[in-house]
Amino acid sequence: MAEKTIPYKIYLNESEMPKFWYNVRADMTTKPAPLLNPGTHQPMKAEELSAVFCDELVQQELDNTTREYPIPQEILDFYKMYRPSPLVRAYCLEQKLGTPAKIYYKFEGNNTSGSHKLNSAIAQAYYAKKQGLKGVTTETGAGQWGTALSMACSYFGLDCKVFMVKVSYEQKPFRREVMRTYGASVTPSPSMETEVGRKILAEHPGTTGSLGCAISEAVEVAVKNPGYRYVLGSVLNQVLLHQSVIGLETKAALDKYGIVPDIIIGCAGGGSNLGGLIAPFMGQKLRGEADYRIIAVEPASCPSFTRGVYAYDFCDTGMVCPLAKMYTLGCDFIPSPNHAGGLRYHGMSPVLSQLYDDGYMEATSVTQTSVFEAAEYFARVEGILPAPESSHAIRVAIDEALKCKETGEEKTIVFGLTGTGYFDMVAYEKFHEGQMEDYIPTDEDLAKYRAMLPKVD
Amino acid sequence: MAEKTIPYKIYLNESEMPKFWYNVRADMTTKPAPLLNPGTHQPMKAEELSAVFCDELVQQELDNTTREYPIPQEILDFYKMYRPSPLVRAYCLEQKLGTPAKIYYKFEGNNTSGSHKLNSAIAQAYYAKKQGLKGVTTETGAGQWGTALSMACSYFGLDCKVFMVKVSYEQKPFRREVMRTYGASVTPSPSMETEVGRKILAEHPGTTGSLGCAISEAVEVAVKNPGYRYVLGSVLNQVLLHQSVIGLETKAALDKYGIVPDIIIGCAGGGSNLGGLIAPFMGQKLRGEADYRIIAVEPASCPSFTRGVYAYDFCDTGMVCPLAKMYTLGCDFIPSPNHAGGLRYHGMSPVLSQLYDDGYMEATSVTQTSVFEAAEYFARVEGILPAPESSHAIRVAIDEALKCKETGEEKTIVFGLTGTGYFDMVAYEKFHEGQMEDYIPTDEDLAKYRAMLPKVD
Repeated sequence: MAEKTIPYKIYLNESEMPKFWYNVRADMTTKPAPLLNPGTHQPMKAEELSAVFCDELVQQELDNTTREYPIPQEILDFYKMYRPSPLVRAYCLEQKLGTPAKIYYKFEGNNTSGSHKLNSAIAQAYYAKKQGLKGVTTETGAGQWGTALSMACSYFGLDCKVFMVKVSYEQKPFRREVMRTYGASVTPSPSMETEVGRKILAEHPGTTGSLGCAISEAVEVAVKNPGYRYVLGSVLNQVLLHQSVIGLETKAALDKYGIVPDIIIGCAGGGSNLGGLIAPFMGQKLRGEADYRIIAVEPASCPSFTRGVYAYDFCDTGMVCPLAKMYTLGCDFIPSPNHAGGLRYHGMSPVLSQLYDDGYMEATSVTQTSVFEAAEYFARVEGILPAPESSHAIRVAIDEALKCKETGEEKTIVFGLTGTGYFDMVAYEKFHEGQMEDYIPTDEDLAKYRAMLPKVD
Repeated sequence: MAEKTIPYKIYLNESEMPKFWYNVRADMTTKPAPLLNPGTHQPMKAEELSAVFCDELVQQELDNTTREYPIPQEILDFYKMYRPSPLVRAYCLEQKLGTPAKIYYKFEGNNTSGSHKLNSAIAQAYYAKKQGLKGVTTETGAGQWGTALSMACSYFGLDCKVFMVKVSYEQKPFRREVMRTYGASVTPSPSMETEVGRKILAEHPGTTGSLGCAISEAVEVAVKNPGYRYVLGSVLNQVLLHQSVIGLETKAALDKYGIVPDIIIGCAGGGSNLGGLIAPFMGQKLRGEADYRIIAVEPASCPSFTRGVYAYDFCDTGMVCPLAKMYTLGCDFIPSPNHAGGLRYHGMSPVLSQLYDDGYMEATSVTQTSVFEAAEYFARVEGILPAPESSHAIRVAIDEALKCKETGEEKTIVFGLTGTGYFDMVAYEKFHEGQMEDYIPTDEDLAKYRAMLPKVD
């Protein structure tokens, strides 16, 4: 094993923790396209968005110029309960792979929500509380976002109503129970509680739900109930802003030891983790101060970057949300039932979509069984049982490290380990039993949903 | 909130991590009573124990004099993957309770096994590997020990065979699946694979198993298969030795900030966590260098300290193991099905039993519903979903902090938060549904099993 001048885990001191979120849009020459009103196709105004979102979050959503946002003290205090997260040097993985590459991962799983989602959940709950709201509504797929929001709402004494994609609700009763422990109410979606839910159930009686559908229900409840707003765990600009804390900590930890990464890898569903992880590095790249290879990894079953189109689309199935310009498979696309519930969204963050379109980052897709092979390998070598979502990044990090083994290059690879897989053991079981399948949509499938995209000039 | 001169989480640097385990027996005037051969009632010799346990572990088991054991480098390297564990200042809990007490907890749950059990698992696997063994056998109740051992065996390339108490095996399929992810084989106990299992099944066809029974099966398999030994996650002296790393880190972290605890609290089943947490503090107490209130917390349903007797007893139901002198309820005592599977052992560590008998520590018992009330309260305030076992300590820490609120005393309370409750959501669900019951054995029950204790002069 190499000399351990770098510790296994780099922790920042409290005084070294970021005091600001970084808004990467401030450094983008081409800004992400604005959200559009689905009726008029005009850019959404703050007043319109305020019916759905908290006021300060609307302001953050629309702000393409402010570079740094001071993190409010209340949020800093909460962050101190579970942050800084460790930047881990994967010595054991390097040794096992026999690679000259140096591998680091930013581990966001050491909190009860089990993932990075808490970083934005606490921010969104804070602004809701500050606005004097009674509560918030949201959707959750895999359950990590719902858990995170439940914790955040419990901390600030807010009511929390979660629409959970039905298939996850049934497969993951324990996730639901964690949310209940934090006082949230959890409803399987589609439900009979909303107009849009009843409509979807009438049209597709046997449906197991989707994120897009659960979003529609959550938005409807927020809009119809005074004192409530809707919050979202990914995709939106505001979420990427909050999640920049991941990248800022990562960069501070690397800087502390004079480490400069060559490759930065993150899994990408809606883009919350990837956008947060890469934020300060992308900023350097945009400003011409440094260059990095940045790789988004998505499931082959839901390949919005690698096989989608860059176009305006609805964020939800019920088409009640604004239109966003993003890499998308079409809002009616429902991916096959793979086990990375957090990566099954039909679209991709508008910020990341623009950066990808401008050539600032790469994207690749990986199949489910190859992801679980990497997950189990990693668990045995590094001792952390990863979430299926996170394991997409592990897969590509291992592949890149093996390329270094061939070429002899001592590249420095940093990847985001977004969370733990304790609530995903059904998926691991399928993998162990050899019952896991790799679904890849056909070109015909994709063309069908692409043809259904809204027409926007 | 108070001024934060003490950070929320105190982490040691790698260079500050303990390099030695501390053997508290070296400082005990009255040593724990020796293990006895169940046939002859003579003290077990190393040769006899070596049929069951690894050689170096036998030596550690019998060594009442060596104060410090250097931790082998291979184990230090593994420790660095998940240690040091944080010593957390519970600022939020203090504020919520409105107590002048200062509360700290040593959190051992941030690793995939979910608890402190990994500290001894990796040590026992290391010595088995060093001895050139093929594999090890063990039992597990709640599943934390089995998971920890699976991880440790996977790291060293050892075969791992786990007998899991049947009721846990059925209630916790996901725990089983984590063990399988690490390559372990898991058998529900009692099983038809062993003589003792077949005998127990014949006598009690509907039994859901017990730790004592699973131990008997694991020992039998180890003894009958060349190249295998049995390992145990609690009770034994060697386990307390390894677990001293918890207390040593805790003390180093406190010393770093000049903090002196008044009260130290740990949950106690077999005693592995409590013995480890208190080790260096107890050492000071034994040497007359300092004084602390030390409190063991056990479930009211399995009250070995508070309602048991100090006597020689079998460690297992099948009576194949040596006799140990300990606080015990009798090896035939099977506690009611409470949800703290890790605290359902009929006996208590001989080291702790002697220290308790000598008046160096206190013990108290708490009911299950009061434990879950504390668990949920803690989860909401401190953001960590605790294991039911750990929540026994939380309950008493909160009670002590509330006493300080009444008296105005600014006591410093340290407790052990041994693990997370992600695999215990069935228990939380019962609590939420109001279906949780508090079983307390009657005096008649206890007298019955006490009468069955082996007669030892």
